[in-house]
Amino acid sequence: MIIILKKNAPKNEVDDLCKVIESQNIKINEVKGAHTTILGLIGDTHKIDTEAIEAQEIVESVQRVQEPYKGVNRKFHPENTLIDIGNTTIGNGDVAVIAGPCSIETEEQIIDTCMQVKAAGANLLRGGAFKPRTSPYSFQGLGDEGLKLFLKAKKATGLPIVTELMSLAHIDLFADVDIIQVGARNMQNFEMLKELGKCEKPILLKRGLANTIEELLMSAEYIFAGGNTKIILCERGIRTFETQTRNTLDISAIPVLKALTHLPVVVDPSHATGKYELVEPMSMAAVAAGADGLIIEVHNNPQKALCDGAQSLTPKHFGSCMDKCAQIGSVLGKKVGTL
Amino acid sequence: MIIILKKNAPKNEVDDLCKVIESQNIKINEVKGAHTTILGLIGDTHKIDTEAIEAQEIVESVQRVQEPYKGVNRKFHPENTLIDIGNTTIGNGDVAVIAGPCSIETEEQIIDTCMQVKAAGANLLRGGAFKPRTSPYSFQGLGDEGLKLFLKAKKATGLPIVTELMSLAHIDLFADVDIIQVGARNMQNFEMLKELGKCEKPILLKRGLANTIEELLMSAEYIFAGGNTKIILCERGIRTFETQTRNTLDISAIPVLKALTHLPVVVDPSHATGKYELVEPMSMAAVAAGADGLIIEVHNNPQKALCDGAQSLTPKHFGSCMDKCAQIGSVLGKKVGTL
Amino acid sequence: MIIILKKNAPKNEVDDLCKVIESQNIKINEVKGAHTTILGLIGDTHKIDTEAIEAQEIVESVQRVQEPYKGVNRKFHPENTLIDIGNTTIGNGDVAVIAGPCSIETEEQIIDTCMQVKAAGANLLRGGAFKPRTSPYSFQGLGDEGLKLFLKAKKATGLPIVTELMSLAHIDLFADVDIIQVGARNMQNFEMLKELGKCEKPILLKRGLANTIEELLMSAEYIFAGGNTKIILCERGIRTFETQTRNTLDISAIPVLKALTHLPVVVDPSHATGKYELVEPMSMAAVAAGADGLIIEVHNNPQKALCDGAQSLTPKHFGSCMDKCAQIGSVLGKKVGTL
Amino acid sequence: MIIILKKNAPKNEVDDLCKVIESQNIKINEVKGAHTTILGLIGDTHKIDTEAIEAQEIVESVQRVQEPYKGVNRKFHPENTLIDIGNTTIGNGDVAVIAGPCSIETEEQIIDTCMQVKAAGANLLRGGAFKPRTSPYSFQGLGDEGLKLFLKAKKATGLPIVTELMSLAHIDLFADVDIIQVGARNMQNFEMLKELGKCEKPILLKRGLANTIEELLMSAEYIFAGGNTKIILCERGIRTFETQTRNTLDISAIPVLKALTHLPVVVDPSHATGKYELVEPMSMAAVAAGADGLIIEVHNNPQKALCDGAQSLTPKHFGSCMDKCAQIGSVLGKKVGTL
Repeated sequence: MIIILKKNAPKNEVDDLCKVIESQNIKINEVKGAHTTILGLIGDTHKIDTEAIEAQEIVESVQRVQEPYKGVNRKFHPENTLIDIGNTTIGNGDVAVIAGPCSIETEEQIIDTCMQVKAAGANLLRGGAFKPRTSPYSFQGLGDEGLKLFLKAKKATGLPIVTELMSLAHIDLFADVDIIQVGARNMQNFEMLKELGKCEKPILLKRGLANTIEELLMSAEYIFAGGNTKIILCERGIRTFETQTRNTLDISAIPVLKALTHLPVVVDPSHATGKYELVEPMSMAAVAAGADGLIIEVHNNPQKALCDGAQSLTPKHFGSCMDKCAQIGSVLGKKVGTL
Repeated sequence: MIIILKKNAPKNEVDDLCKVIESQNIKINEVKGAHTTILGLIGDTHKIDTEAIEAQEIVESVQRVQEPYKGVNRKFHPENTLIDIGNTTIGNGDVAVIAGPCSIETEEQIIDTCMQVKAAGANLLRGGAFKPRTSPYSFQGLGDEGLKLFLKAKKATGLPIVTELMSLAHIDLFADVDIIQVGARNMQNFEMLKELGKCEKPILLKRGLANTIEELLMSAEYIFAGGNTKIILCERGIRTFETQTRNTLDISAIPVLKALTHLPVVVDPSHATGKYELVEPMSMAAVAAGADGLIIEVHNNPQKALCDGAQSLTPKHFGSCMDKCAQIGSVLGKKVGTL
Repeated sequence: MIIILKKNAPKNEVDDLCKVIESQNIKINEVKGAHTTILGLIGDTHKIDTEAIEAQEIVESVQRVQEPYKGVNRKFHPENTLIDIGNTTIGNGDVAVIAGPCSIETEEQIIDTCMQVKAAGANLLRGGAFKPRTSPYSFQGLGDEGLKLFLKAKKATGLPIVTELMSLAHIDLFADVDIIQVGARNMQNFEMLKELGKCEKPILLKRGLANTIEELLMSAEYIFAGGNTKIILCERGIRTFETQTRNTLDISAIPVLKALTHLPVVVDPSHATGKYELVEPMSMAAVAAGADGLIIEVHNNPQKALCDGAQSLTPKHFGSCMDKCAQIGSVLGKKVGTL
Repeated sequence: MIIILKKNAPKNEVDDLCKVIESQNIKINEVKGAHTTILGLIGDTHKIDTEAIEAQEIVESVQRVQEPYKGVNRKFHPENTLIDIGNTTIGNGDVAVIAGPCSIETEEQIIDTCMQVKAAGANLLRGGAFKPRTSPYSFQGLGDEGLKLFLKAKKATGLPIVTELMSLAHIDLFADVDIIQVGARNMQNFEMLKELGKCEKPILLKRGLANTIEELLMSAEYIFAGGNTKIILCERGIRTFETQTRNTLDISAIPVLKALTHLPVVVDPSHATGKYELVEPMSMAAVAAGADGLIIEVHNNPQKALCDGAQSLTPKHFGSCMDKCAQIGSVLGKKVGTL
């Protein structure tokens, strides 16, 4: 960490600041320039509160040199984290495929869709029982009734399930859920992250719509610091000025994250683009760029979907998407789904 | 609402779509152009799910004509909502001032700061017991211990208090809090909004860092639809590419919101800018632009603040800021704080 | 085009507006709702000035139904535009590769680099003689001296060259340049676009850092409307809040543009990411998503580069990148470069 | 400037880098931490190319400590720059008001509008002869014919005029123009900035739609470095996700710029908001926040305006806006316009 002092900072105040910092087991090296004096902090600085230092009258600015996350940092844990769920391992170099409808609507819908995505090569099932909707007047999901239907689909297919937790008050209902999803709008719901840090289930943590990669990793660090190391990161598009797509899928986040952290990275092309015709090319791009997984919306009748139908593939189109991705995977030595 | 159909949409499918819509008590007027056919929907369309319609094969796009919010819409409730808390009314044309430290740290700190902001003309007190921090290693607030200290400050000053709720699990602790704050990161924590809709206390709802004014109003609509109409909106800066300020305070949101909704609008220049020297000019600008209130961070010793010291005013500087704002207010016929 | 009128718009003013519009050979269909009246405009509306209509007192808003661009619109020209330069055709389904240094620095550097990228499979050469730099104190390029060196590289390799035009005052120097590049910062330099519309050379038009796809197409329309139909669009990353990459490469812009326009789309992973280690995965992703070309920075000694060395590949690394892209191309039936 | 080296950077390579830097008359202070080594550069570093250093294999990152601009930096020139035009001084603590139509349309329109804004207290006139329009099919301005009409208005009113230069090819037509405006889309048209650096007229430099304050100052530095120190900066709104306003007026840019630079800062609320009803509150906010000037669109018949009518005030409304701003100015000791 580097502290840049204001010109003419009184020596006694600088000394006071240095004493406070050194008391935290940090060494300080002072660099005096013509216009500026810099303090270089040496030691484990990731717990130092940069804001408290910036508040000092004599400080012009503070710049971090090391990343502010430690547990999820690849520098301190070079090997990939592997997450085993049922017969699938996420993070081992292959591409896990999670598929299913945006919302769970009826028993017929969820079971039929899940059977078809399994047949097409999906490893895990996705489906929403509690739905975050911008409008209070939109369909809010079937809630615990939806979860029960989803468990039937789990039983029918034998595949593990992923679904979103919107409130800690619901967590007891998630006993048989295999991966708990934290949605983009809850990425910085820090109380939820703290609780999930105490939980034993893998967490699928979605990047917030306007959050940086570092903020995503800091939210993962909340879970990690609580003791739960089974974290899957999910790039699902960020908000930009572009209106042709719902959000902009940040494909470069895949190799960036793979370099910064040992956690697996999956990609959600359905929410990112909001348009079914873009799901296939974006899935192919994600595989080419090194994603550990894909999470794709499939509905057995998109036109009747109660939510996000415009971005859902039909099972047939999903099959074609899987084939294309598997072809890309084949030249890279990666298995895509169960294909 | 307007539905733009794809070229060559089969007549029978268009008829089917029209029947579904008409069954919701909506009339349809069809406009046929050279390249496009448009359906104009007439009636109360705010509960129609635009996404479900966009998912139809024959639909090119859907455009709303009416706002998707109704309860908080000024069109249906032209008079300003007035919110009475203690001796203060928010929304009556004056400028209510809420002041206090970012975090509650010690009994001395909170009581001393609050006494001083009262003396300088504040109407209400702010202070954080539960703090949303990007890093799990940063100070997280004193929690319920902090709330107890804040209640002592309430008693000592006789002023009402505002503090942030970060989890519904804490709500029982908020019995003596006067206004519950929903932070920017929880603006779309829809489960929290639903619960607060059932609550009787006024809610201070902060705009999310990358959220639009319409999304803010839709979140307010969640609370309103639950039955709680005492909602105060707060503009606190939005994320932009600018790095000289922590966020960019959207001053134009004040007159825009005042036109769209009957709810009062307060402004937080401290979090928006992140720099104490910008708080005074931005407070003055907010008063000039028509804000119903200001929420300002004041610390009796900013350099020792455990959080956000860089943006906190000293009580003395706060006094000067109040004077300047009162001067602006005076030419506009607005009382600022108790001045 | 749809005009939404204000509630209680006086009938005579509406009639006046309708007359003005109808005089432009447009038919109007009026739709009256409970709260709103809508005018549906039927005919060729792309030359109607939406802003002039929005300025009318009686108008609440105006919404376009058709795209505002016509010449570059795939709806009116379904076949791909093919651009022939030397032995290469851009837009025919293969992936053209343009490679070379950011800046032309010395004869040795440009010729050596160009010979090596040719050997590795590049179809065309890139190199900057006039460089847009944020700081007036940074290296500004060798100017016409640089162009002369680049022409030597063209002769030595027999490959066509692409280079950026920063001012119309330089255009006479570009007589032997094969493709003229318009940089991101000049995407809305409309006077330049108008002039290039009269020129016979192909134009490589880069998307602005914060511009939408529609704005890119409107800038292309400026060139097209002037008579020059040989336009190559270039996605080169957009500005987002992410700081791990210089910009965010919008891979989804590739399939979106391919659907909206008949013009070819190339991708610049070097400027988009600003980091050499991301160029290979992003190139692979771009090929997988359907790009018509890649434009990649290669320097024979990146550490000595006078500009953008951090994002330049070595010739060796470029060779490996070409191999990986060719593998992806092979499963999609696309030739990548001359491989 | 601070250079952060990669872990395990070979000593001989570090020594080589240091030699190159020291040859530029810079001293280096090395700080060795547990995980990181930092080089602190002491001396005048604003001409050092950070990108060239970042390209070195052994360098992890480079961070500037000093601002990269020098001529426009208030640190090296603490007094305000004053710009005299006719009877008006911009930058002296008062608020200069520039008003007039977006586009010059007819002799009657420009002279009538200008006479009325003069009567209402404007100091200078604005009007567009060359108009940057997103669409090639929109009205592009009257060009040199428009300039001639504007000069008639100058003569009729005796007030100085401001108008936009879109191409250096037009500069000879600007001989009698008092202030040359560089539009937002040309803020980084570096060739234009270099030429204007050689010119003797004051330049009104608008901030680009997605540009930072530092980038604006670097563009001003281009002009300053060329020898022209008469630069007026203009905040005119930045692109954000908000759609209720055309752009988001960054009012906080006013005090930020006033602290960083000695150049005057004017504000354009008309283009920023795109809505006439927001011009008055935003003008008042700008005055309250310390702006040196306002640039406001006024049209004698906004509904007939050929461009941007929706954001133009009538002369009557402009008069009311001036009165409100003058009231705000009065409590701050600032004269607004000629009032």
